[in-house]
Amino acid sequence: MKIRNPRTGIYDFEIPDLSADFVRNRCHTLRAGQKEWHKIGIHNRIGILQEWKAVVLKHKDELIEALATDTGRIWETKLEADIVAASIDRWCTIAKDFFSPSIRKKSSIPFIQLQQELEPFSVIGVISPWNFPLLLSLIDTIPALLAGCSVIVKPSEVTPRFISVLQQTIDKVPDLAKVLSYIPGDGKVGEALVNNCDLICFTGSSATGKKVYDAASKRMIPVFLELGGKDPAIVLASADLELAANSILWGSTANAGQSCLSIERVYVQDTVFDNFVALISLKAKELLLNADNINHGEVGPIIFEKQATIINEHLADAIEQGAEIVTGSTQCEKINGGFYCRPTVVTKVTHHMKLMQEETFGPIIPIMPFHTTEEAISLANGTVYGLSGAVFAGTVEEAMKVGSQIEAGAISINDAALTAIMHEGEKNAFKLSGIGGTRMGPSAIKRFMRQKVFIIKEQPIVSPWTVARYRE
Amino acid sequence: MKIRNPRTGIYDFEIPDLSADFVRNRCHTLRAGQKEWHKIGIHNRIGILQEWKAVVLKHKDELIEALATDTGRIWETKLEADIVAASIDRWCTIAKDFFSPSIRKKSSIPFIQLQQELEPFSVIGVISPWNFPLLLSLIDTIPALLAGCSVIVKPSEVTPRFISVLQQTIDKVPDLAKVLSYIPGDGKVGEALVNNCDLICFTGSSATGKKVYDAASKRMIPVFLELGGKDPAIVLASADLELAANSILWGSTANAGQSCLSIERVYVQDTVFDNFVALISLKAKELLLNADNINHGEVGPIIFEKQATIINEHLADAIEQGAEIVTGSTQCEKINGGFYCRPTVVTKVTHHMKLMQEETFGPIIPIMPFHTTEEAISLANGTVYGLSGAVFAGTVEEAMKVGSQIEAGAISINDAALTAIMHEGEKNAFKLSGIGGTRMGPSAIKRFMRQKVFIIKEQPIVSPWTVARYRE
Repeated sequence: MKIRNPRTGIYDFEIPDLSADFVRNRCHTLRAGQKEWHKIGIHNRIGILQEWKAVVLKHKDELIEALATDTGRIWETKLEADIVAASIDRWCTIAKDFFSPSIRKKSSIPFIQLQQELEPFSVIGVISPWNFPLLLSLIDTIPALLAGCSVIVKPSEVTPRFISVLQQTIDKVPDLAKVLSYIPGDGKVGEALVNNCDLICFTGSSATGKKVYDAASKRMIPVFLELGGKDPAIVLASADLELAANSILWGSTANAGQSCLSIERVYVQDTVFDNFVALISLKAKELLLNADNINHGEVGPIIFEKQATIINEHLADAIEQGAEIVTGSTQCEKINGGFYCRPTVVTKVTHHMKLMQEETFGPIIPIMPFHTTEEAISLANGTVYGLSGAVFAGTVEEAMKVGSQIEAGAISINDAALTAIMHEGEKNAFKLSGIGGTRMGPSAIKRFMRQKVFIIKEQPIVSPWTVARYRE
Repeated sequence: MKIRNPRTGIYDFEIPDLSADFVRNRCHTLRAGQKEWHKIGIHNRIGILQEWKAVVLKHKDELIEALATDTGRIWETKLEADIVAASIDRWCTIAKDFFSPSIRKKSSIPFIQLQQELEPFSVIGVISPWNFPLLLSLIDTIPALLAGCSVIVKPSEVTPRFISVLQQTIDKVPDLAKVLSYIPGDGKVGEALVNNCDLICFTGSSATGKKVYDAASKRMIPVFLELGGKDPAIVLASADLELAANSILWGSTANAGQSCLSIERVYVQDTVFDNFVALISLKAKELLLNADNINHGEVGPIIFEKQATIINEHLADAIEQGAEIVTGSTQCEKINGGFYCRPTVVTKVTHHMKLMQEETFGPIIPIMPFHTTEEAISLANGTVYGLSGAVFAGTVEEAMKVGSQIEAGAISINDAALTAIMHEGEKNAFKLSGIGGTRMGPSAIKRFMRQKVFIIKEQPIVSPWTVARYRE
């Protein structure tokens, strides 16, 4: 299978077409390896992951190079590579506290004691997306490994160049290689994962997530889905507009808007609407495309060709219905073979437009005025999504009052898209944005395990058999 | 829709055919009621549930009468009715400790604080089975109500007579009636529930559970499934055989074996095999059918006609393949129009027989010898199910060593089917027996809620806008 380069449009890379049999065999090997991995205990697992961390750090430059080719952008790539080590450390710390020896406890019935244990699932399948290829392939993988599971990861076929570099670092830690495997492939390989794993973690579009959920339901295995978003930001009249504009611009345009936690809709109180639009438009113009030089400019290419089509479709639909482009692109621009979209401020938008209802995944900032906070809340809740959101106001209390009524798993107060860097908060996606336990904090480890309880009659007292036991 | 009486075979009861529109409207009303229910807080919710408890206790006799007609048996019915009050009390105690005021915590980033809150799902749909119609309709309902959700319950159409009696008790507590509704109906009504609720709890057969999971996946809503079992018991040579026989007989034949936690396979170490078979057969013969008088005899009718067909099929298949009926029935007997099955000990069984692979749901005790404990563990794990299991041995340690290798959510040590009465242990079903969080303990409340995190920039400090933020 040939892979497109997002900066040149040239299909300059190839991945093998792995068969369903290959995936089955790989899962079989990982299943065998998991037994020992579980048995060696959390301290040994931490030790092995730390060993891996050192190897990854040693090969960081190669990893960045492959990822930068995959995605066509550089500073987000460095950020991704930097996060790996910190992320392993953070999970190891959480895991150390999480595992405690199981204790036998008295129950409320005499002679009966209880002992609870956590047993990891055997093989976890991770299907990860192209927008942060490395980061999002690890977000479920590391806690699953620490829980004592084996993990097979299939990153998106749109960005597969980093896979072999990362797999080489895994192979340098033989104990890890027995329980962790990265494989390239498209939807067919993903399907094979669903057919051979015990639990599936999927991060990606709601459309593909639906397919994964359906396939998992047929096999009766659990799934965790982290899907699309259409995150709203609300700016109240009392807000510091400078702060709001800075934060929202960052939240909307980082990684060229290709982030599930991206701000995709902005609601501004009518009395400050014009000022806010002027302010953010001015700032948006300062951001430059990196089309000519990957190291120059803040906005990289649209990584996935089909996504450029969606962005174009949303923009065209909005313009046709009367939307106004204050600054930015009316369509993605093709430069040197890659697709680019400028940070784009759009006004005169309505909820009838795709731009305000469906995930755009581009650096587009549609802004709509509101009069009352009730109206703002109703607008913010007016999509099928519920990943996160942001509220800006003069005081934290005022913002919290509005934020508590937004149907989403994480609400940033006087900042935007903070959840992307904040891993301490546990959250669950609302509505169409996801299903399954939180992927942050200790619960993220627990969701890869099942509670097993032993109910123990401490003294094997022979109770005399009587039919009357039935009537006790 | 006409409903069969399990003791007479006569279709002597009728339930209305509720339309999908009816269900949609009911869910709409419950959704509206949930907002206030959530808002009044846990102490008020506990108060209202306690009020309901008092009403239920007042109408206990009517409830027992309706349930006894639904199921054709009396002592299990009394047990079910008795458990309601205790269960409400237990959940109220757990809930009181569970809810604590949310605290704002410092994060590792300066000026950023975190506040985590739990937000209940709005409308929970409960689809419950016919084997313990009252008990199993409440097991998810009470924690969901305490979590702050509305609940709509559809008990099985096989046993619907208790519904109106229970609904009358609900109607006597107007604040509860706004958030709790019992409705009769078959699979079509169940489908309407899936189409209108935010989360589905299903208890019942794996076959129907698969359909529910598939329907839920299409709507992208979470499901909790508590499905079939084929629970094994292992008796080691060192076990107290008297204790093992008493416990296993109880575990296999209570409620005429119509329990998901029923022991359906027994593996006995070869050196004590003959003794054990003789002992349990003797005891099995003491148990009498209640066919002539509901108040006389321990074994009630097979409640669901189709289940009698399954039991017959499993027995016929086993006999054809060489199994031997030591005591009991070779087929269900039709007495006064109802189907009955005697406690039946079967030997010379193999894993090629349906009786050892599929859920039978009757008072059948197939017993198979084993030589080594490895063999016993492999046999115990040799089905698609993993609900619970039991191990009998001379010491708790010996039993635990074997039990820890059984793939199931709960293992009883020197007793059987204890999980049915032990609510303190948290467990998860393994394999085909279930999906979703544990339904016991505080986690059972939490699974009806989502974590919502507020990420708060405490001081709205205006960071000067710089393009360099992208490279920070």
